[in-house]
Amino acid sequence: MEIDQLKKWRRELHSFPELGWTEFVTTSVLVRELKSMGYEPLLGESIINREFVRGRKIDLVQKAIKVAIDKGVDKELLNKMNELTGCVAIFDSGLPGPTVALRFDIDCVGVQETDNENHLPLINGFKSNTPNQMHACGHDGHMAIGLGIAKWLKQQPVNSLCGRVKLLFQPAEEGVRGAKPMEMSGIVDDCNYYLASHIGFIAKSGEIVVNPNSFLCTTKYDFRFKGLSSHPGKDPHVGINALAGCCNAATQLLAIPRHGKGMSRINVGVIRAGEARNVIPAYGELQVEVRGETEEINTFMCQQAERLVKGVALGFGLDLEIEVMGEAVDLTNDQEMVQLLSDVSKPYNLTIIESRPFGGSEDATILARRVQKINNGKAIYFVLGSDLKGTHHQSDFDFDESILPIGVNIYTNCLLKLISKK
Amino acid sequence: MEIDQLKKWRRELHSFPELGWTEFVTTSVLVRELKSMGYEPLLGESIINREFVRGRKIDLVQKAIKVAIDKGVDKELLNKMNELTGCVAIFDSGLPGPTVALRFDIDCVGVQETDNENHLPLINGFKSNTPNQMHACGHDGHMAIGLGIAKWLKQQPVNSLCGRVKLLFQPAEEGVRGAKPMEMSGIVDDCNYYLASHIGFIAKSGEIVVNPNSFLCTTKYDFRFKGLSSHPGKDPHVGINALAGCCNAATQLLAIPRHGKGMSRINVGVIRAGEARNVIPAYGELQVEVRGETEEINTFMCQQAERLVKGVALGFGLDLEIEVMGEAVDLTNDQEMVQLLSDVSKPYNLTIIESRPFGGSEDATILARRVQKINNGKAIYFVLGSDLKGTHHQSDFDFDESILPIGVNIYTNCLLKLISKK
Amino acid sequence: MEIDQLKKWRRELHSFPELGWTEFVTTSVLVRELKSMGYEPLLGESIINREFVRGRKIDLVQKAIKVAIDKGVDKELLNKMNELTGCVAIFDSGLPGPTVALRFDIDCVGVQETDNENHLPLINGFKSNTPNQMHACGHDGHMAIGLGIAKWLKQQPVNSLCGRVKLLFQPAEEGVRGAKPMEMSGIVDDCNYYLASHIGFIAKSGEIVVNPNSFLCTTKYDFRFKGLSSHPGKDPHVGINALAGCCNAATQLLAIPRHGKGMSRINVGVIRAGEARNVIPAYGELQVEVRGETEEINTFMCQQAERLVKGVALGFGLDLEIEVMGEAVDLTNDQEMVQLLSDVSKPYNLTIIESRPFGGSEDATILARRVQKINNGKAIYFVLGSDLKGTHHQSDFDFDESILPIGVNIYTNCLLKLISKK
Amino acid sequence: MEIDQLKKWRRELHSFPELGWTEFVTTSVLVRELKSMGYEPLLGESIINREFVRGRKIDLVQKAIKVAIDKGVDKELLNKMNELTGCVAIFDSGLPGPTVALRFDIDCVGVQETDNENHLPLINGFKSNTPNQMHACGHDGHMAIGLGIAKWLKQQPVNSLCGRVKLLFQPAEEGVRGAKPMEMSGIVDDCNYYLASHIGFIAKSGEIVVNPNSFLCTTKYDFRFKGLSSHPGKDPHVGINALAGCCNAATQLLAIPRHGKGMSRINVGVIRAGEARNVIPAYGELQVEVRGETEEINTFMCQQAERLVKGVALGFGLDLEIEVMGEAVDLTNDQEMVQLLSDVSKPYNLTIIESRPFGGSEDATILARRVQKINNGKAIYFVLGSDLKGTHHQSDFDFDESILPIGVNIYTNCLLKLISKK
Repeated sequence: MEIDQLKKWRRELHSFPELGWTEFVTTSVLVRELKSMGYEPLLGESIINREFVRGRKIDLVQKAIKVAIDKGVDKELLNKMNELTGCVAIFDSGLPGPTVALRFDIDCVGVQETDNENHLPLINGFKSNTPNQMHACGHDGHMAIGLGIAKWLKQQPVNSLCGRVKLLFQPAEEGVRGAKPMEMSGIVDDCNYYLASHIGFIAKSGEIVVNPNSFLCTTKYDFRFKGLSSHPGKDPHVGINALAGCCNAATQLLAIPRHGKGMSRINVGVIRAGEARNVIPAYGELQVEVRGETEEINTFMCQQAERLVKGVALGFGLDLEIEVMGEAVDLTNDQEMVQLLSDVSKPYNLTIIESRPFGGSEDATILARRVQKINNGKAIYFVLGSDLKGTHHQSDFDFDESILPIGVNIYTNCLLKLISKK
Repeated sequence: MEIDQLKKWRRELHSFPELGWTEFVTTSVLVRELKSMGYEPLLGESIINREFVRGRKIDLVQKAIKVAIDKGVDKELLNKMNELTGCVAIFDSGLPGPTVALRFDIDCVGVQETDNENHLPLINGFKSNTPNQMHACGHDGHMAIGLGIAKWLKQQPVNSLCGRVKLLFQPAEEGVRGAKPMEMSGIVDDCNYYLASHIGFIAKSGEIVVNPNSFLCTTKYDFRFKGLSSHPGKDPHVGINALAGCCNAATQLLAIPRHGKGMSRINVGVIRAGEARNVIPAYGELQVEVRGETEEINTFMCQQAERLVKGVALGFGLDLEIEVMGEAVDLTNDQEMVQLLSDVSKPYNLTIIESRPFGGSEDATILARRVQKINNGKAIYFVLGSDLKGTHHQSDFDFDESILPIGVNIYTNCLLKLISKK
Repeated sequence: MEIDQLKKWRRELHSFPELGWTEFVTTSVLVRELKSMGYEPLLGESIINREFVRGRKIDLVQKAIKVAIDKGVDKELLNKMNELTGCVAIFDSGLPGPTVALRFDIDCVGVQETDNENHLPLINGFKSNTPNQMHACGHDGHMAIGLGIAKWLKQQPVNSLCGRVKLLFQPAEEGVRGAKPMEMSGIVDDCNYYLASHIGFIAKSGEIVVNPNSFLCTTKYDFRFKGLSSHPGKDPHVGINALAGCCNAATQLLAIPRHGKGMSRINVGVIRAGEARNVIPAYGELQVEVRGETEEINTFMCQQAERLVKGVALGFGLDLEIEVMGEAVDLTNDQEMVQLLSDVSKPYNLTIIESRPFGGSEDATILARRVQKINNGKAIYFVLGSDLKGTHHQSDFDFDESILPIGVNIYTNCLLKLISKK
Repeated sequence: MEIDQLKKWRRELHSFPELGWTEFVTTSVLVRELKSMGYEPLLGESIINREFVRGRKIDLVQKAIKVAIDKGVDKELLNKMNELTGCVAIFDSGLPGPTVALRFDIDCVGVQETDNENHLPLINGFKSNTPNQMHACGHDGHMAIGLGIAKWLKQQPVNSLCGRVKLLFQPAEEGVRGAKPMEMSGIVDDCNYYLASHIGFIAKSGEIVVNPNSFLCTTKYDFRFKGLSSHPGKDPHVGINALAGCCNAATQLLAIPRHGKGMSRINVGVIRAGEARNVIPAYGELQVEVRGETEEINTFMCQQAERLVKGVALGFGLDLEIEVMGEAVDLTNDQEMVQLLSDVSKPYNLTIIESRPFGGSEDATILARRVQKINNGKAIYFVLGSDLKGTHHQSDFDFDESILPIGVNIYTNCLLKLISKK
């Protein structure tokens, strides 16, 4: 794959970063390119199950749609998206064979890109043109790799490939929000193989981690309590105190017991309750996350957390809203995929790192688990090393664009092994 | 009324004090005396509704029955009592007329009577013969007055009185436990008048408080949480921690909001949870009391308390047992009874104190409220002054026996006004 | 006093309402008028002890100064104010005699004035020209009365009055913030008499409440906890959790025990802690108020609250900032002042209401207490009745301007009794 | 070593089991035997630093001394013990060489020994003769082995051994209480080698675990809060509520954050506060234990726990007593000792298990750490397998006496390697 095209894509996408669930311009760029290659990308509810959408604020969505219209995004396209971002391009060989899903995430993070004069995106004129939003995690690179693979697929000789490839451009990975509703659309339910990756992170240029481990299961919650305000001097007995509920819930959540079988975590990251000193607070909310080394442990944490807040709601007479804002599971790569990846990596002189702890959460795992469970499919998540400027999620983040063609090649060589006509 | 008989009764009863719900010997003495006057006292479930019995420990009851048997109490009598103490003697004039209830409490307190050489019960040989139990509140005097009235009633000329008089000897006033089940037996449901009193307390010998006020409504609760023990090192996630539930419940109970309409109170007097340092506690309990200046406020406190503990039980996955251990309400004396009492007190050269704060709880109020509500009956609770040694509930408590005949006379003169044949 | 002048003053002040500590334009209007009468008003630190200023946000102050400059307020005047609002005009008779302090509050409330077409300020073109700020409590009327008295004083014949009168135009009454630093400037330390009042509130036009009672003592607190953020997945043991501290503090504060001697109150009106779900919160704050029926009870509440938050800070390893944001005390009017006010009210055909519960907090009480304590001075706070549209602090609030001259007359007749040359 | 003597010792000691810090009879038996071999055992404060004694109740100690006197224990011996149990016998070869410490624990557990007819101690007439006390952990076997080694040492030819051997008979291992004060007496400060072991537990007869791992560090605490009682109705503001303090402390302790570097644990096993429903509790206590996978983590837990309870004491105005009731650390066996043990075990046809998780706490680790730290000494703790009836700490526990001579042989062969004259 030619690096120039990959850089061009990456740089265009870098210049207009969008937060999770608002990637309307980003999606339109992907659709434009995919269409120019001959794909007819799937959009909206065919790839996103609205019922399972997590952590999406409708006012931000509508503002983003207006911005997209201002940017000249086609209204018909926006109609098809139906307020949901992301797209899926399907390559169908026309011949019987397995279905392979490849997944690329497309959202940015809420960081102000640096004005440091050594910052390559600034020098080369593709710095984010939106304040406080930046592709500071490398998802622009992921998308460029995805487009490169899409192009490569269309370039293969007729009848050289069999089966199908689904290129999933998934929204809202940050906050581990987008994979669940994509899973629940059923889009990977017919897939036999699944590959996803991240650039940088735990490996340098020239390295590839073929079997990262220690993916943390996690669930993100918002808990919202609604009570009744009253005057704390005159009517202290009338109020139904949402602040009291929030504070008791928070202290109880932080005391969820440890789990005997492994690592667990709980954080109450944000509490907001009450509006004025002299009013008994009628509303309060908690932003919470739990984690577990295994799905069993994470489920334990979720059950404890949900039961505790329900108890507080009952005890204080409050109405309670529980919203799951995001989730990711753990992942065990299938050994045959690890072997496959090691094999195809060798010709590229990459240092193959068998295993290294990922130590974070990634919602690519949710789609991987679906493929593994539903079809006894085989899944892998790997890390494509890249030298970095800054670190992920920081304003001076940048990765090494020279890895982009390597990424495309790794994927396409895997495809050659998986769906070459024999 | 002759003082000698009253003193004799009082002293016999003083010498064998029994705690609430264990007054088997005491009841047998009352029954013996009442029978000797010609009464056939009601016992057991005819006067105590077992379903509403509060704060009664069955092992203490059974131990007390054994003691009573050892003391020679007739087994047939004990059978009739059916594990329930107290008795009611009914005087029936045979003529139509109103029914008057008089109530006397019969239990002692858990105090070791003093060995101080100046202590009159010691000097005169009627000190408590049971360790850690003592008539240190004057209920022995109340019973003596009640027997005096019983005797007087039988001495009145035929056809001089009309209607009926019910002499209620109520168990378990301490902890405000006995009045509720007596109320729920229906024993006062046909009563048109109700009189009860306390000796000492807020008035000296020569005084009578005809309209004490500020009776505090109160409810006593035991809350018991049951969970599941487990090893805190190996299986911290398996335990269902009753101690955590208890402690959260206690902190929440202490934060029940104040009431805008008046005084409220909450106390968690006792907490007990867990048996060993290295076991997650499977059981815990709280002993709680709430109070309110009015029934509305006390009800608010009860509702809040019960809801909070239910919320904790739900949140922590615990089983919960709520037991009401006692209760008392407030009281507004009927003005015509206040007037009646003032009138009959005058001949005895008593200083009539119109009103004085009682500032405590008394379950005589529960029976008073029943009479007031059910028949639009008239009720009064008054305080018969007495000089005291020590104070109520202390080991050196003693009252002035010379007030006993005055007490009988006040009551009997009231009866003459209420049920004399006209 | 002519009503037209009073209305003109009131309406000008009404049209440019300013929140507590930002009354720069308001103060400049007062100064302009007072200077035109021949006063040389005191400003800045001579009347406000900066150390005791409560609940003042410096960014709002600086914004307000810019607005004042835009409005044409003289920069030299602003320099003299030195970022502090309010002014004191002193009338000195030149003859020996007592010093009388009269106090008028000058700030508005944070309410959007109504556009209802029947709203008199709208009809007459003096509606607030600042969004979300409105004289919805009547302080505009208080200032007009103060200016009326100032004018009257200058009109009295030479040598008819003795002693001095201090006209205190106090900032920041809302949130009970301004009186304390005015007290601590020493401005009333030489005063022998003190009068202050409110219009409307608990009395109608034609009524005057000469001895309102039940002023609630109150203290307003901000508690701010500072800890250390860390990653809740990787480094849960490194964070010093300000949210945990806040929540434990809040639950403990709400459980401050009731007081046996009278009414107490506690409210945690606002909690804010943490910025992101996946960060252990490094900062959190509580906005709290306590109240007490008496200064003893309020002091108890303060001591408990401060000790509890200090304990939490120690226990959780947090830094703690305690800021008193406002305070008011209770008040017992001096009987001779009550008599004086009753006497001077009679000629005006006012219904004199001896006593009526005020049931709120007012920081005029702080200055009153100072005068009473320091010189055994005599103080009074009274309520000048007024028919109202809407109620205090609501967008359609308006009072009856016809009471303004009555207000002036009541005050000036009091002055004639207190400082007429005999 | 002859098994008969070992069994005789074990059975005598089994028949009179004593709880930690009350092993007066046990110590007297050990002293009797050791003296008969020619030792002059050290007692009292020469081996136990009284200042560091943990979890010792003086009334139990005094009761045990009376029992010992009744049992005929020599009063002079008891005087030397000075209320402290345990003893240390020192074998001194008279030749220069290393000092080796061997440690044996001597206390029993609080369990009622079974009356099951198949229970060997019952059949053979050496069942515990003290109710609710039983050698149900095997410490009787440990002591027998210790005595066997002592005897063997005295039997060795003159000049065949060099250096010294300290035989530590340590009290109060249960609750991990006795090692710390023994450490702090300095008794092992001159030791170059340290060996200790447990029988049974994680290995069967014929097995030896030469390098058990996963010793949990632990600290046991009692936290005691003292406040002020008062009447919750009349004087709720006067009480200093120890129950409120306890409950807040408990909820905070249970929420001590997890540690990022490994496993941690917290348990509040017991809470007791308050004596009566209608009294504000003046006293309350918590029994707590923390654990950590490493000493760093356990120290973190200790620091958090102590700081939290101090914060609660400050916040609620309570006096606080922190008592460490027991402690154990982790242990890394020195590799050369593991090798030594493996070497000497081979001739006995034992299955040598290199490593197996111990998964519990043992205060032998405290003495091991001292030897390792102070002299760069070498230490080992191993498990001598034994088939068991029942499990440790249960009423039907029994071990396989045939392992006793193996235990002696393992130790003595180690000694031959360590202190044979070369």
